[in-house]
Amino acid sequence: MPVDLIPPLEKELLPVCGVSLGIAEAGIKRPGRRDLLIIQLAEHTQIAGVFTKNRFCAAPVTVAKNHLSGPLPIRALVVNTGNANAGTGQSGIDHAEMTCAILAKLLGYQPQQVLPFSTGVIMEPLPVARITEHLPVAAADLSPDNWFAAAHAIMTTDTVAKSVSRQVVVDGVSVTITGIAKGSGMIHPNMATMLGFIATDAAISPTLLRSLVRMVADCSFNRITVDGDTSTNDAFMLMATGRAGHAPINDANHPDFDRLRTAITEVAVTLAQMIVRDGEGATKFITIQVEKGQTAEECNKIAFAIAHSPLVKTAFFASDPNLGRILAAIGYAGIDDLDVTHIQLYLGDVLVAENGGRTTSYREEDSQRIMQSPEITIRVVLNRGEATTTIWTCDLSYDYVKINAEYRS
Amino acid sequence: MPVDLIPPLEKELLPVCGVSLGIAEAGIKRPGRRDLLIIQLAEHTQIAGVFTKNRFCAAPVTVAKNHLSGPLPIRALVVNTGNANAGTGQSGIDHAEMTCAILAKLLGYQPQQVLPFSTGVIMEPLPVARITEHLPVAAADLSPDNWFAAAHAIMTTDTVAKSVSRQVVVDGVSVTITGIAKGSGMIHPNMATMLGFIATDAAISPTLLRSLVRMVADCSFNRITVDGDTSTNDAFMLMATGRAGHAPINDANHPDFDRLRTAITEVAVTLAQMIVRDGEGATKFITIQVEKGQTAEECNKIAFAIAHSPLVKTAFFASDPNLGRILAAIGYAGIDDLDVTHIQLYLGDVLVAENGGRTTSYREEDSQRIMQSPEITIRVVLNRGEATTTIWTCDLSYDYVKINAEYRS
Repeated sequence: MPVDLIPPLEKELLPVCGVSLGIAEAGIKRPGRRDLLIIQLAEHTQIAGVFTKNRFCAAPVTVAKNHLSGPLPIRALVVNTGNANAGTGQSGIDHAEMTCAILAKLLGYQPQQVLPFSTGVIMEPLPVARITEHLPVAAADLSPDNWFAAAHAIMTTDTVAKSVSRQVVVDGVSVTITGIAKGSGMIHPNMATMLGFIATDAAISPTLLRSLVRMVADCSFNRITVDGDTSTNDAFMLMATGRAGHAPINDANHPDFDRLRTAITEVAVTLAQMIVRDGEGATKFITIQVEKGQTAEECNKIAFAIAHSPLVKTAFFASDPNLGRILAAIGYAGIDDLDVTHIQLYLGDVLVAENGGRTTSYREEDSQRIMQSPEITIRVVLNRGEATTTIWTCDLSYDYVKINAEYRS
Repeated sequence: MPVDLIPPLEKELLPVCGVSLGIAEAGIKRPGRRDLLIIQLAEHTQIAGVFTKNRFCAAPVTVAKNHLSGPLPIRALVVNTGNANAGTGQSGIDHAEMTCAILAKLLGYQPQQVLPFSTGVIMEPLPVARITEHLPVAAADLSPDNWFAAAHAIMTTDTVAKSVSRQVVVDGVSVTITGIAKGSGMIHPNMATMLGFIATDAAISPTLLRSLVRMVADCSFNRITVDGDTSTNDAFMLMATGRAGHAPINDANHPDFDRLRTAITEVAVTLAQMIVRDGEGATKFITIQVEKGQTAEECNKIAFAIAHSPLVKTAFFASDPNLGRILAAIGYAGIDDLDVTHIQLYLGDVLVAENGGRTTSYREEDSQRIMQSPEITIRVVLNRGEATTTIWTCDLSYDYVKINAEYRS
């Protein structure tokens, strides 16, 4: 049961000039679902991405990074669900390369112009024949209007498809941004078990796009956590086709760059929050704000210590304002010189703790009231600097255990 | 349901010459259970301890550290369950000091000769009046034969009391070691939500005892994890009364020191493993060995990444050999230069993965067979050095969520 997450409507998704999507049913894990997606990019499209930092990164991550750093422009992406092609050694690499080569041949490109992505079970061989057999079906399906179907095709344990569009005026012309993402377990920054694809018809120079994708990821997908597990396959790709008709934006000082960056970030934050709202077994959507820290890094440490604590997460599942568990998590976050007597802890608008203990005005009824809401904000004010961070997470329920004990993900 | 954990028998616990224990029912959290323990130490007893590194450490931890570092010999410990006296600010410190002062007066010591310990719910005021009222009852109960009752008095969510005795010959005389411990959730090194008290009648110099307590903790209580939460209240105290009758051991080169250290470590490891076996909701006892690492630190990082992964823990709960999740945890453990193609992963005696993927001889039936056992060993051979580590953990079940969602711990 996702938390306050309304499934997107097909008509809300705007096509992006220069991007076509094709879907097929390849029967990768089981028959009867569309599990294969290809994205074709118009000539001169720029693309940049960020990938998992997991050392056991999947074969498609290795291959995608190689192709991205090569001299040829990227013209297509191929995404399968049902199998992660991770922990598969050299044969996994061969399978990912083979998938690229066959799609490239179909579309008239070189293999190095295709990026592969996979998500699903780890350490099982990729059923590459089923994928390559169905690539022609997906190619025949290519259309700019397939974003909605694409959002569904990349789902694994997701219960709701994640997609969103925005429009913004850049340099006097209307620019479209549309994104899709998947992920609901194994979610942790750098990155989550997530795939995210955002395309825009804006024109952005390659160098600026590479820094933009990091800025956007740092404000969105790198600020969410479900269970603290970092996947082998995460990738977030940002594509700019340049078809909107404005002159290319080459640097961050361009007068409309901030407006564009903000709109793309909004799309990414919306997708990232959708992932948390659809977190495995989630019943609460929790925003954690850590304020007035010395550095963003220490704010992050504290925010993620709270977000990862199974004790905090189970208390929120129970709607039990057992808030001492939050203090304990702050205390073990690894900030050696933290003076806990300066910290204020708020649940929603209720001041819970200060001076190293519960505030004298605190009444449990107040936090009990906040705890009933499906959307809760925890604020930790460190009072030792000017840095701030905000992250999003969910609670830990019976259903998280059920999903992960029963699903071979 | 603890995993292969047989409740200790009263007659197996040996008194330690110079140590008396008294128990009372103070009604700290609820009536009807013995929740207050005092331990009295004979003159000339040496004591050393290790404490939580949580910055929100509880008031009794602060007070115990102060008293330990003072000039007066420690003569008594007072332990309550039902309330952690953590996140309680200055009044918490006052309550802990008051408890020490009243017990000291009863027994004829100075307040600084008493160490306080608390465990239970965080951020609730300590019901200090109930404790001080019942200290005379506990004092009247003092006896060397109360170890079994003491092990029960310190339990919180524990389902089985934890206690063990050993004897060893040192310098020609028989020396006794008896320990008790508590803890089953919020268990993570440095330290767990655990209290551990081990006493021996051996004679050990203060300096050597201080290094011994760290050596012992590093091989036992710092090698267990249930949920990765580090408590505000953890403490492990090692007491040596010197009543066994041998000449004091002053340095680590003493011919019998290793024998004594080994016996004390065995007691501590047994107690630590009992804590994991009684981990909240545990159905599996999991040993994680990481071998042939460059440093013990990197072995620990990998071992604890596996042990803390909710995805690994739920797979073990389901007896599902979804072992790719272990590879993923190894990959995100934070070893930047890890070459995963050199790693071998074993489940029990089954070689699961090598060369960056599943081994060709692997058959899922083999790991399925291992998964049926309540005691499972995961071995990760890094093949890049000589360092090794072993830690112990348990799985993540519905009952962990239930206990922590329903129990205000």
